[in-house]
Amino acid sequence: MAAMNRRIVLAARPHGEPSPAHFRLEEARVPVAKAGEILLRTRWLSLDPYMRGRMSAAKSYAAPVAIGEPMTGGTVSEVVESNNPDFAVGELVSAFGGWQDYAVSDGRGVQRIPPGVPPTTALGILGMPGMTAYTGLLTIGRPKAGETVVVAAAAGPVGSLVGQIAKLKGARAVGIAGGPEKCRYLIDELGFDAAIDHRGDDLPQALAAACPDGIDVYFENVGGAVFEAVLPLLNDFARMPVCGLVSAYNATELPPGPDRAPALMRTILTKRLHLQGFIVWDFADQAEAFLRDVGHWLRDGRVKHREDIVEGLEKAPEALIGLLKGRNFGKLIVHVA
Amino acid sequence: MAAMNRRIVLAARPHGEPSPAHFRLEEARVPVAKAGEILLRTRWLSLDPYMRGRMSAAKSYAAPVAIGEPMTGGTVSEVVESNNPDFAVGELVSAFGGWQDYAVSDGRGVQRIPPGVPPTTALGILGMPGMTAYTGLLTIGRPKAGETVVVAAAAGPVGSLVGQIAKLKGARAVGIAGGPEKCRYLIDELGFDAAIDHRGDDLPQALAAACPDGIDVYFENVGGAVFEAVLPLLNDFARMPVCGLVSAYNATELPPGPDRAPALMRTILTKRLHLQGFIVWDFADQAEAFLRDVGHWLRDGRVKHREDIVEGLEKAPEALIGLLKGRNFGKLIVHVA
Repeated sequence: MAAMNRRIVLAARPHGEPSPAHFRLEEARVPVAKAGEILLRTRWLSLDPYMRGRMSAAKSYAAPVAIGEPMTGGTVSEVVESNNPDFAVGELVSAFGGWQDYAVSDGRGVQRIPPGVPPTTALGILGMPGMTAYTGLLTIGRPKAGETVVVAAAAGPVGSLVGQIAKLKGARAVGIAGGPEKCRYLIDELGFDAAIDHRGDDLPQALAAACPDGIDVYFENVGGAVFEAVLPLLNDFARMPVCGLVSAYNATELPPGPDRAPALMRTILTKRLHLQGFIVWDFADQAEAFLRDVGHWLRDGRVKHREDIVEGLEKAPEALIGLLKGRNFGKLIVHVA
Repeated sequence: MAAMNRRIVLAARPHGEPSPAHFRLEEARVPVAKAGEILLRTRWLSLDPYMRGRMSAAKSYAAPVAIGEPMTGGTVSEVVESNNPDFAVGELVSAFGGWQDYAVSDGRGVQRIPPGVPPTTALGILGMPGMTAYTGLLTIGRPKAGETVVVAAAAGPVGSLVGQIAKLKGARAVGIAGGPEKCRYLIDELGFDAAIDHRGDDLPQALAAACPDGIDVYFENVGGAVFEAVLPLLNDFARMPVCGLVSAYNATELPPGPDRAPALMRTILTKRLHLQGFIVWDFADQAEAFLRDVGHWLRDGRVKHREDIVEGLEKAPEALIGLLKGRNFGKLIVHVA
């Protein structure tokens, strides 16, 4: 066991795009597990778009990370000390270990990694991103056979599963991603019906061509130009689960006018749209169904996943900055130890 | 029977606020009921905000009225000739007779006025506005005991029933209306917990004071300044049935910037709001439950309603123009004959 705990703390709140200067790598003592607690060694750290929100002081569904405190984050960790009868030394668990080598926990929210699948799936397709896709698409999106489902960031861990579940439900899956390599992956590997490169194509035109029968479900995780292109193509009674707006996370002010909020409300009214924001924990009661269904599909090869592994905790800031620009290809994970 | 059919046709499409010049009163022959048809004499004509939409060519959920054609509208009509065994001469029915003295119908969508209630209730509390309030509030809004429900145009036929049903469900009802007389009516007659005069009060401040526990359901029928005041007060998981945006119906262009649509989407996400547009016919399968429940409440005196009757078909254009400015006090109905 290393003598010190390396941790990456929030050094300053970014105004706009985060840079390496907003993070600081420091060393602290390895924390001590008290009665009932476990000491966790971080093996893999998950990087996810929501972390940009935690860097800001703005009110959101979760408290911001305090300046000088370690960045929060889901981890796959190894139990290296245990004063808790529920966990044995050597077990691999999913936890919220944060951006650091070691963390202590009282065991709440810590779950043993199920056997039979690679441990890192607990951070991706069988973890928070996968459950976000599963719950948002099936509970709010409710795709029916023959309908058209559109999702952006489609090569990422949420979008890729949204499209694949849409296909399993008999719907048409249209993915939007950055670059020809990701688009080929969507079609050739994941079985999407169409893929659009938002960097290369005329997005509104390409999306309209890819959705000849309009759009019935738009799984909203990016906002911005994709949202603008989707809106005129939505069919009456379309559903829009809203779980992220990555394109706006670095925004420092409202975009220039005109104010299109009233036009958006008018579209909601005349097309009788259903928009609903959610975060995955709102559907905590579906965790069992999610693990059962997606675990089954994964073992049967009916859904695939892809990971983008970065080596070394010290690379986490740069990797998160890249994630917000769409530089990752697959679930972004830092291999810590 | 009068020899001629007076009818008010759409003379021109308004750009912005409609004026009397956009309507034309003309006389035509009384139409002839063919085999299977009935001839209807309009007794009362309903005026409703949606009619502004029908005057525009813009795509919406219903086709626009053609230039030179009679304005559409719900009516209470008397069957004066019948070639249809389902209807007898002399019966009062609710129909879509339009802005005219006479209309023919094949009977589709025509319903006998139930006995025991005044016939004009079929245009208001027991008609389309009442069913809009009932279905939107209960199916999308789903108020729970102790929650706060906010509705604007609260002295109108939709808003007044929204607030009263909210009270019946144990929720707190906060109404917004124009002028002290309407506000007194909400409190003294309808039992709202709070009423806010949007003409007199500092709306954001008054609404915040009237909603100390935030807002759980906002029944959206006006948009504009009310919507702006509501948004910061919405609680997590608030529901927003969207059935009208009267404040914007006369808008000729988008309001100046900044563009607040991304901020709206961010609020939907972080507060996990549920917004859903609807029109009453989307819930046609609830008609029976609506008539049973609201009819029961009305006969028991548990809900009240108020009508604003205008005398004479020729007054309809002026009355509709006034409706869009909130000049009516209660369900606006033209007594035609």
